[in-house]
Amino acid sequence: MTEFNRFFEPASVAFLGASSDARKWGFRILFNIITGGFAGKLYPVNPRGGRINDLDVYRNVAEIPEVPDMAVIVVPPGGILQAVRECGQKGIRAVVVITAGFAEASGEGAALQKELVELAHSFGMRLIGPNCFGLMSTPVKLYAQMPTAFPPPGPIAVVSQSGNIGFTIAQNAMNMDFGCSRVISTGNEADLHAEDFIEYLAGDDQTRVIMSYVEGFKDGRRFFEIASQVSLQKPIVMIKVGETEAGASAARSHTASLSGMDAVFDGVSRQAGIIRVYNLQQLMNVGYGFLCHPLPRGNKVGIVTLGGGWGVLAADACAKLGLDVVRLPDEMIKEMDSFLPGWWSRNNPVDLVAGAPPGSFERVIEILAKYDRIDAVIALGLPGPDSIWEAAYSTGENREEKLKTAIVDITDAFRKAKENAEKYGKPVIFSAGFPSPGGDTSFEHRARRALSRQNMVCYSLPDETALVLSSMVRYSRYLQSRSQR
Amino acid sequence: MTEFNRFFEPASVAFLGASSDARKWGFRILFNIITGGFAGKLYPVNPRGGRINDLDVYRNVAEIPEVPDMAVIVVPPGGILQAVRECGQKGIRAVVVITAGFAEASGEGAALQKELVELAHSFGMRLIGPNCFGLMSTPVKLYAQMPTAFPPPGPIAVVSQSGNIGFTIAQNAMNMDFGCSRVISTGNEADLHAEDFIEYLAGDDQTRVIMSYVEGFKDGRRFFEIASQVSLQKPIVMIKVGETEAGASAARSHTASLSGMDAVFDGVSRQAGIIRVYNLQQLMNVGYGFLCHPLPRGNKVGIVTLGGGWGVLAADACAKLGLDVVRLPDEMIKEMDSFLPGWWSRNNPVDLVAGAPPGSFERVIEILAKYDRIDAVIALGLPGPDSIWEAAYSTGENREEKLKTAIVDITDAFRKAKENAEKYGKPVIFSAGFPSPGGDTSFEHRARRALSRQNMVCYSLPDETALVLSSMVRYSRYLQSRSQR
Repeated sequence: MTEFNRFFEPASVAFLGASSDARKWGFRILFNIITGGFAGKLYPVNPRGGRINDLDVYRNVAEIPEVPDMAVIVVPPGGILQAVRECGQKGIRAVVVITAGFAEASGEGAALQKELVELAHSFGMRLIGPNCFGLMSTPVKLYAQMPTAFPPPGPIAVVSQSGNIGFTIAQNAMNMDFGCSRVISTGNEADLHAEDFIEYLAGDDQTRVIMSYVEGFKDGRRFFEIASQVSLQKPIVMIKVGETEAGASAARSHTASLSGMDAVFDGVSRQAGIIRVYNLQQLMNVGYGFLCHPLPRGNKVGIVTLGGGWGVLAADACAKLGLDVVRLPDEMIKEMDSFLPGWWSRNNPVDLVAGAPPGSFERVIEILAKYDRIDAVIALGLPGPDSIWEAAYSTGENREEKLKTAIVDITDAFRKAKENAEKYGKPVIFSAGFPSPGGDTSFEHRARRALSRQNMVCYSLPDETALVLSSMVRYSRYLQSRSQR
Repeated sequence: MTEFNRFFEPASVAFLGASSDARKWGFRILFNIITGGFAGKLYPVNPRGGRINDLDVYRNVAEIPEVPDMAVIVVPPGGILQAVRECGQKGIRAVVVITAGFAEASGEGAALQKELVELAHSFGMRLIGPNCFGLMSTPVKLYAQMPTAFPPPGPIAVVSQSGNIGFTIAQNAMNMDFGCSRVISTGNEADLHAEDFIEYLAGDDQTRVIMSYVEGFKDGRRFFEIASQVSLQKPIVMIKVGETEAGASAARSHTASLSGMDAVFDGVSRQAGIIRVYNLQQLMNVGYGFLCHPLPRGNKVGIVTLGGGWGVLAADACAKLGLDVVRLPDEMIKEMDSFLPGWWSRNNPVDLVAGAPPGSFERVIEILAKYDRIDAVIALGLPGPDSIWEAAYSTGENREEKLKTAIVDITDAFRKAKENAEKYGKPVIFSAGFPSPGGDTSFEHRARRALSRQNMVCYSLPDETALVLSSMVRYSRYLQSRSQR
């Protein structure tokens, strides 16, 4: 069993610091492991013994009737060395230390952290943490974590130096009905670093995209060597903070991270194929983009819009991000002339003015995708029949039925449009608003989830589509350049 | 009665192009006016006469038994001159032309538009449009518009050269329970321009903030002269597209707008005190910020966070936007030492690590706000008791009761924190995630609406708070510089 399998596919877990007090992390994390439905054996440990939630509590690790594959430790800092020693003596080789109060807190904390790592290594043991939120591994239903959130299995892996942010990413993925494979809060990285997990995830067949939040590097050279290998296999989308002195100073207080010079990171990460983003929304958007679309071959984009203003916003955003909003070739214009009303824009974006016949949206997308001149399509607005809006605004007893029909109509229209582009191997990135009668966003929420269940995503804003597409173009070109070496 | 009162406070409206066919705008817009509950008299006009929705349809404008204050016209382009002539002969002096197919479509359309304006002016008539979505004026419950959305009265006015985007702004404001005063889709601006409405809104006591989407200027000099007067009275938050050649080209097709050089706009708009933003989310965020907070005197910010990573993101974002994440003075650190656990960060952001006593969040905000060294506070994370999370994740029959209590707890905690800052005349800008068990965002949605009903806003991302605060600082400094002239 490799060291990472012990963390991510354990058959048994010891939990040191188990508590029956609902205000304590020793209860809450244990509760999350139980509630999450962990597939293996769970051994709570507390010197006081007794029972918690129908589980026997062991007075010490030695008493556990087997050698657990992994241990989770939440005892206070003063008890940490004793806890790790017990685990080591038992033969446990993988330990997650949730406890805070180490290098991030004080000089004594830093000394204790050093001692902790030396002790662990003396047993051949690997450590996650300390000062972390724990980890999630959905294939074995392991939710050994502080937050109470249970995303289903899915293609998104998260490696985060902030537990709070890491699990917020997971929660966002869950809300959109994209699931997670593994989520790791790396904390102070006293032993295992972010790059170790990124390396593991490259070979993890449950993971298709790696989302990461990074404050700094314990071993920058190794980080980038690994990243440049991994990015050949799957996209790594990353928030790297500490861009400014204020941010770097905050990072030092948070996880004792040294951010290093931001300009250096920017250059090196580009060479390593890392897709850098700047906030959580961008991270989610770009990650979903990689999950839902084929990679574009180049940067030439065709835009179709159901509202003129949206097209202008998208064209601006595309051009700012280095995408080429190409002039439409005459033959393409001619083809669209055959069914669009006489006064259509004859321009890119293709503005589907009032009077365009039903189905024009899907048809224009296919025409745009068919031509060599265009590498990707951006499609703005909600396609489909007016019944969508009527359903959303309907009241009365058969509203639910109408809503269901409308959601099917929406997903059908999007899928048709997507297929029309993908049969030419090209991505079509959607953005649309949804009806929210009286401020009720439940229809929108349901429709978006229905889309993601069919591996589709529709962004809220046209400039989001431009960012997603430009990130995919950048990654595609990176892969092309690496394959030519 | 001034020309703008005719549009925004009409006692009677003629509707030319009334239809009983639900697929036509002649029905839908009429339906919106009726459904919206227009307080005045409504006169549908169609040569065929008859009745629509319990209203008598007049065969022509001359038959209407009074002179309506305003007319809305949706007849096809070929009938537009005749319709305007009828209105003019009747004595109507304010007309909204919804119909498209003018300067934005073709050379002939441009010629027709010119004729339309000349005809209107020959009667002393003012025009909104053509090629627009109509207008909304909530104080008289007038929803003379294409989209079916009925925001309640409120402090947000919208002036948009894209009808689609203008009404999306209104819908977003409605979803967040901030209402709208007036919404104007200016279309091709053949007669009245965006700046005319901005000038009107300056004196409109229903309006506290003006949100605007602009593609280009018919009369740039006048626009900026008016804006620089209006911005002394209320903030104007604006998306100006056509930043790039691709965007400018799209704008020409959309509303025949000439965007002009973007760098010129950027400089001139700064001199006029316009707060420029770059997408719809920023527009809403910054607008809400002005509604909910006092203006900061300067750019010095104190940050308090319930999660380390959020603090780092916010510090980075603040520094990038020119905010000063100040070093905390020793006396402030001492004051916080008196109740925060020994290992707290002693840094800005103040990271409220595990172990901070209840109430620390509100208390730290007050301490930050109290000192001259700090002009504004950014507060990250959801304050309040754990009951919030327990309620969100509870199931069973008293869940609804628990949720209600939790929402009251949240709004109380935020209000307390806000009062703690505002008693020193300083803004505190919030950002937090909300629990969304199993992907159900209804709790979040209800909590956010409960906040806005108390004139509070909590943003989703920490970098959003930085953008809002930096916009407020910029506006505050603009007002200071103008008052010193």
